Amino acid sequence: MAERAALEELVRLQGERVRGLKQQKASAEQIEEEVAKLLKLKAQLGPDEGKQKFVLKTPKETLTGKYGEDSKLIYDLKDQGGELLSLRYDLTVPFARYLAMNKLTNIKRYHIAKVYRRDNPAMTRGRYREFYQCDFDIAGQFDPMIPDAECLKIMCEILSSLQIGDFLVKVNDRRILDGMFAICGVPDSKFRTICSSVDKLDKVSWEEVKNEMVGEKGLAPEVADRIGDYVQQHGGVSLVEQLLQDPELSQNKQALEGLGDLKLLFEYLILLGIADKISFDLSLARGLDYYTGVIYEAVLLQSPAQAGEEPLGVGSVAAGGRYDGLVGMFDPKGRKVPCVGLSIGVERIFSIVEQRLEALEEKVRTTETQVLVASAQKKLLEERLKLVSELWDAGIKAELLYKKNPKLLNQLQYCEEAGIPLVAIIGEQELKDGVIKLRSVASREEVDIRREDLVEEIKRRTSEPLCTC
Amino acid sequence: MAERAALEELVRLQGERVRGLKQQKASAEQIEEEVAKLLKLKAQLGPDEGKQKFVLKTPKETLTGKYGEDSKLIYDLKDQGGELLSLRYDLTVPFARYLAMNKLTNIKRYHIAKVYRRDNPAMTRGRYREFYQCDFDIAGQFDPMIPDAECLKIMCEILSSLQIGDFLVKVNDRRILDGMFAICGVPDSKFRTICSSVDKLDKVSWEEVKNEMVGEKGLAPEVADRIGDYVQQHGGVSLVEQLLQDPELSQNKQALEGLGDLKLLFEYLILLGIADKISFDLSLARGLDYYTGVIYEAVLLQSPAQAGEEPLGVGSVAAGGRYDGLVGMFDPKGRKVPCVGLSIGVERIFSIVEQRLEALEEKVRTTETQVLVASAQKKLLEERLKLVSELWDAGIKAELLYKKNPKLLNQLQYCEEAGIPLVAIIGEQELKDGVIKLRSVASREEVDIRREDLVEEIKRRTSEPLCTC
Repeated sequence: MAERAALEELVRLQGERVRGLKQQKASAEQIEEEVAKLLKLKAQLGPDEGKQKFVLKTPKETLTGKYGEDSKLIYDLKDQGGELLSLRYDLTVPFARYLAMNKLTNIKRYHIAKVYRRDNPAMTRGRYREFYQCDFDIAGQFDPMIPDAECLKIMCEILSSLQIGDFLVKVNDRRILDGMFAICGVPDSKFRTICSSVDKLDKVSWEEVKNEMVGEKGLAPEVADRIGDYVQQHGGVSLVEQLLQDPELSQNKQALEGLGDLKLLFEYLILLGIADKISFDLSLARGLDYYTGVIYEAVLLQSPAQAGEEPLGVGSVAAGGRYDGLVGMFDPKGRKVPCVGLSIGVERIFSIVEQRLEALEEKVRTTETQVLVASAQKKLLEERLKLVSELWDAGIKAELLYKKNPKLLNQLQYCEEAGIPLVAIIGEQELKDGVIKLRSVASREEVDIRREDLVEEIKRRTSEPLCTC
Repeated sequence: MAERAALEELVRLQGERVRGLKQQKASAEQIEEEVAKLLKLKAQLGPDEGKQKFVLKTPKETLTGKYGEDSKLIYDLKDQGGELLSLRYDLTVPFARYLAMNKLTNIKRYHIAKVYRRDNPAMTRGRYREFYQCDFDIAGQFDPMIPDAECLKIMCEILSSLQIGDFLVKVNDRRILDGMFAICGVPDSKFRTICSSVDKLDKVSWEEVKNEMVGEKGLAPEVADRIGDYVQQHGGVSLVEQLLQDPELSQNKQALEGLGDLKLLFEYLILLGIADKISFDLSLARGLDYYTGVIYEAVLLQSPAQAGEEPLGVGSVAAGGRYDGLVGMFDPKGRKVPCVGLSIGVERIFSIVEQRLEALEEKVRTTETQVLVASAQKKLLEERLKLVSELWDAGIKAELLYKKNPKLLNQLQYCEEAGIPLVAIIGEQELKDGVIKLRSVASREEVDIRREDLVEEIKRRTSEPLCTC
């Protein structure tokens, strides 16, 4: 018992040391070293035997251990009870925690919600502090690569439907990367940091990446060169076949596993009709620590017609991969639940769509109002309220101005500005005649409709595919 | 300048005193006293002339000043930069802040999102720590009571559509309450706290409320009795008329304003067809500080048939009111934007709907899958992937098991458990014949459909009003 208490104290102190190093922005290697020590100490504590109260919230160490170099971007908070809290950085870690807490072994779900990153917001680049993500994940032990293929099918389906232009999905595998680094001679301790450098190849040149690896991260130049030979390659399933024949890579067990799975994946992608959108790209290295197998990232391709435009510079629009070890980290007994999923970068896509609409100078409505209920003379508020209530009860989207005696011109102008297609005008004479004047805002044509036929007429005009209002 | 700096320092110190009193859970009266001093000091600072940097976030003082006695329920957080943050307690204060920051004077919006309260969660009572709210608000200067009436119309429309049973909307007005307290002899400083007591009349008896006011809050018994004469009354527009004739109440300017507005409101509610759902209830006092005019709250009525059941005990299912002063508190120049709105208690309603479904023993599906793509023999995964891709591309909601060679029986069982109505079974013989066997899970009937007709057949069967799958 005293031994255990001492161990727990060591764990606590080591945890504080790690936190301290992070706050001081020590080097990634130093932090990694101390985190490794922390994990070894924790492992010595052993599995929970009922003595340790496992309060599964989102412990700071857990979050920071998952996001690698991005961990400094987590919003850490302390509440008035002294509890340490963190705002979720993505929807994946919360998902894994949820599975562990509820002992779920098999679930498929989507989640659209806000996530929080303490970033330097650059609105034009689509990097916010609080923004939406849209995730889809499949958790469970299944036959290989079928759920992974479904994730890619869904990603392609979504991106195609959004009509944001041509896109490409880059695919790689963490095991291929690790195997490749091993045979190139990268020291184990530098794996993650070299991964980060390689990942920048989509934005900067190989020369720059090599300089960072050699000059800043202390990698031997010849090792960097060997990496360069691999990571500048991309292609289809033929590249997978080629690498399976590579004399050095095929000697590495991890790489072989990864290549085998990618080969199987490509077979499924062909059957699902999306293989033409997929590129096996050895430079894809994705910053997050928790991926264990296939990883993928979708980027927009600039069409020739847009060559003269400013590059959008928004990076990827969707990404994901397989992460078999994450749920186990939240389970007291370390029970694993394999997971694969994807995240759609909705905010980045919104930026793109917004820019395109602005360029087209298309007016975007902010409401779906179909009819404005208006009056042609004074003292007709009562009639307007009665009519708008009738339209609402019939499921028609209608509005009225919140004025007792609005001018007809103002009401018509309101429709122009808001893009409301129809006006139902109440007038004294029309009331006596039992009709409402229905006006088309676009054409300015007006026709008298019998009160009892109005709902049907409005529905007819608003239901046609090309609204002929 | 020195004067101003001194004033600012006084404001800061007074602010800390208020915070301190709250943390120590000092009496509401004492806090109110110090808050009033704080506001007077701030008022002396005068409007912003460009010298004072107004950083509009969600300052802790702002939140606590808005929620009255509920302010201890706010999640206060400090982030790693030392910034004081609070998690939003509702969607109304954020809305008001947003209007002020963006200088909006005229907007109508709905918002469905999570809010955070540091409450003692009682899951059966529908009181959570993190839960959804659904708000609708109309901001702007308009002719009186028209937007207020629309809010009530929307509230009734929503609650009716949800089919959760009969409901009643209680309506009152902050000015009537204040006027009534004044003529009854309630000291100004006790207004808010007496409000809280009166508000409990929907849950406890008048005797208990009177005891709290007299025994705990130091109200004179005869004052309490006078309050009792009023607050136990409720009715329709006739009660409004009656009180307009009340010799004492009609002497009070505030009360007269409130009664006049309620009279106008009832006229509009009759035109909108919902007056029968509305009750003018003088005991409705709603805990929040920021209401300035009409206030309303919807409660479910227990039907006679449910008399034998456990009372649901969830309180109100929707509420709202007019709050004309809130935006001005966030504007440096104190510019006011009148607002009125409502909040639907979605979590409470979910609880109710869940309980009802359980009682009916109705099975609730968690997915909308229409077809499972299955195989009758081994080595048909390829065909399943091709077919499911075809169905997905046609917009049909389909699934397949993530197994290379699943047993047919397991696939059928999966459909039973998940409530999937149709199975598209691929078999070796059927492949040769160019057909797919379409099976209805409910009836167990199977029929061979030509591959090229399958999509249409599935759409036909799944589109009928009463799905005849």
